[in-house]
Amino acid sequence: MTVSLTAAAKKRYSTKAYDPDRKIPEADIARLKELLRLAPSSVNLQPWYFVIAASEEGKARVARATDEAYPFNSPKITDASHVVVFATRLKADDEGFLNTLLEKEAADGRFDADPEQFRADMDRGRRMFISIHTGQRKDAFDWMDKQTYLNMGQFLLAAAQLGIDTTPMEGVDTDVLDREFGLTEKGYKAAAVVSLGYHSQKDFNAALPKSRLSEDAIMETV
Amino acid sequence: MTVSLTAAAKKRYSTKAYDPDRKIPEADIARLKELLRLAPSSVNLQPWYFVIAASEEGKARVARATDEAYPFNSPKITDASHVVVFATRLKADDEGFLNTLLEKEAADGRFDADPEQFRADMDRGRRMFISIHTGQRKDAFDWMDKQTYLNMGQFLLAAAQLGIDTTPMEGVDTDVLDREFGLTEKGYKAAAVVSLGYHSQKDFNAALPKSRLSEDAIMETV
Repeated sequence: MTVSLTAAAKKRYSTKAYDPDRKIPEADIARLKELLRLAPSSVNLQPWYFVIAASEEGKARVARATDEAYPFNSPKITDASHVVVFATRLKADDEGFLNTLLEKEAADGRFDADPEQFRADMDRGRRMFISIHTGQRKDAFDWMDKQTYLNMGQFLLAAAQLGIDTTPMEGVDTDVLDREFGLTEKGYKAAAVVSLGYHSQKDFNAALPKSRLSEDAIMETV
Repeated sequence: MTVSLTAAAKKRYSTKAYDPDRKIPEADIARLKELLRLAPSSVNLQPWYFVIAASEEGKARVARATDEAYPFNSPKITDASHVVVFATRLKADDEGFLNTLLEKEAADGRFDADPEQFRADMDRGRRMFISIHTGQRKDAFDWMDKQTYLNMGQFLLAAAQLGIDTTPMEGVDTDVLDREFGLTEKGYKAAAVVSLGYHSQKDFNAALPKSRLSEDAIMETV
């Protein structure tokens, strides 16, 4: 079942309590994983990694990142159906990774029309933007972290359209997640966590109206 | 016309050339504006502002941010149907703004069940997260900028579902945009630009296959 675009955006809200007995169908999980993979990123860098906790053990491991500093968030993890840890690459100018991206783009057929030229152009363009961030701006990690958040935005809307409730949580100790899932060694840092599932009857937030600033306050047309 | 979720994510790509004669219907623009407004953000901070260039003059003003440093991006702005400048708040701990948010949440009915208590809880929770970022982490602007990117991710997927082509562009001189649209005085900094419209026959990228890393490379299930 999918909900229309605007209806989904209106209905979506941060779930505060999940029904621990309801599990997301595998077909929906597969669609969401595909969306995580397909999300766009600057210069196609795909600077992200996802740990998907689908088991009780997996969720308990994620909840170690909330038990001490943000205990009010732990039940939103352990009672959810699935939990996704969003993580961001630590290093942008990694030769091995840049070559992996180029090889994948070549294998996927993006350079077929003129393999040498297109491949060189893509590599040069990507390195130009990376060097802006590693060099003059010195914000390479934050730049990549923003791509991870862009992915998260797409993910939250997609889940809502599948009728799945979500809770994006920055109230997690990302250092604990890095250690728990060996993210640092893999070259990533945890950014935030999104719980997925179906809200329980105890979720006070489910019935509350959404509040947003008016269009006048946040946009203008020129 | 809306496209299904996965189909939209697969079809979406960064448009390199727009058909200058095709305009997005007003009904679709209205839906996209509503989505910009409804997007979620940490502690409902909504730390964003949007300049929507809908006229030739408006687009020409946006293109001043690419003409010098990124001239290859200028036609993607001037030939598009509409262009959205995404901007982020400069200051998180702004008393006036925090009160505006609380007042709006009250007016929208979020505190009705227990106005004093709910209002105080919301204010305290929001200030706690803001103080983490203004205080120990000293990353308040980047934190807010990430919310803007989250909004952008939702926006790109939504546009694709409406059959609208997009080009997210970081290759813009954000200082020029800040001056051109008085964003600094309004309390914001431009983050990036998204062009919207319909690709032209000259867009080499329209027919190229999408390339993404495999699921194995970017995710694991625990």
